[in-house]
Amino acid sequence: MTDDERSIRELAATWFAASKTANLQAVLDLMTDDVIFMVPGSKPFGKEAFAAAFDGMKQVRIEGRSDIQELHVLGDWAYLRNYIEVTATPPISDTMRRTGYTLTILRKESDGRWRITRDANLLTIEKPAN
Amino acid sequence: MTDDERSIRELAATWFAASKTANLQAVLDLMTDDVIFMVPGSKPFGKEAFAAAFDGMKQVRIEGRSDIQELHVLGDWAYLRNYIEVTATPPISDTMRRTGYTLTILRKESDGRWRITRDANLLTIEKPAN
Repeated sequence: MTDDERSIRELAATWFAASKTANLQAVLDLMTDDVIFMVPGSKPFGKEAFAAAFDGMKQVRIEGRSDIQELHVLGDWAYLRNYIEVTATPPISDTMRRTGYTLTILRKESDGRWRITRDANLLTIEKPAN
Repeated sequence: MTDDERSIRELAATWFAASKTANLQAVLDLMTDDVIFMVPGSKPFGKEAFAAAFDGMKQVRIEGRSDIQELHVLGDWAYLRNYIEVTATPPISDTMRRTGYTLTILRKESDGRWRITRDANLLTIEKPAN
């Protein structure tokens, strides 16, 4: 595994750890300033909208795991396909489970750190088992 | 606009034209052999599964338009964000309209032609107006 691949895998792990602890600043530090997030049924949105949504989830307990399907480094760019399972438990309602795949483009910035710059998130809500 | 950008824009236009005329071979020629398509709620799939699904749509009249949001060429790689509107009209049922965004990774192959290699399709079905 190259240093770049290792850095990007660490980024993915840090993302989950920071989401669990609701550490907004840590998550924002993993994306470029011009990042664009894409989810089904919405217009693409950027860092500010991400921060607002993340901040609104402070009371929600997040658990998740990811299983990297593919990681391809192209110089200072890379793309990553990931499979993700996330559960979100708000204080006063049932746990919601979302699973699915992501396609993410990353860029190595001038400080030598990889950051997420484009992200297509195809996760869907799983129907509860009961 | 560079030659690469022009070629990729032509590819997107050819994709729509070939879909309208149900020209499977022309569509398959626009993707790499190892292409991976991603849609919400399904496992990623490749060229063979794409061909089977496309073939099953032969009787469906397809209309569509796209509005390229961003095209970024990185040497022999590129990514494209697109906004797409598609209507599909089967012979004996109502027209279905799907709209949304895509994130596509393209690769310039050894024959000098750009082809789609990874595609995340976030289109959702629009509720009918009536």
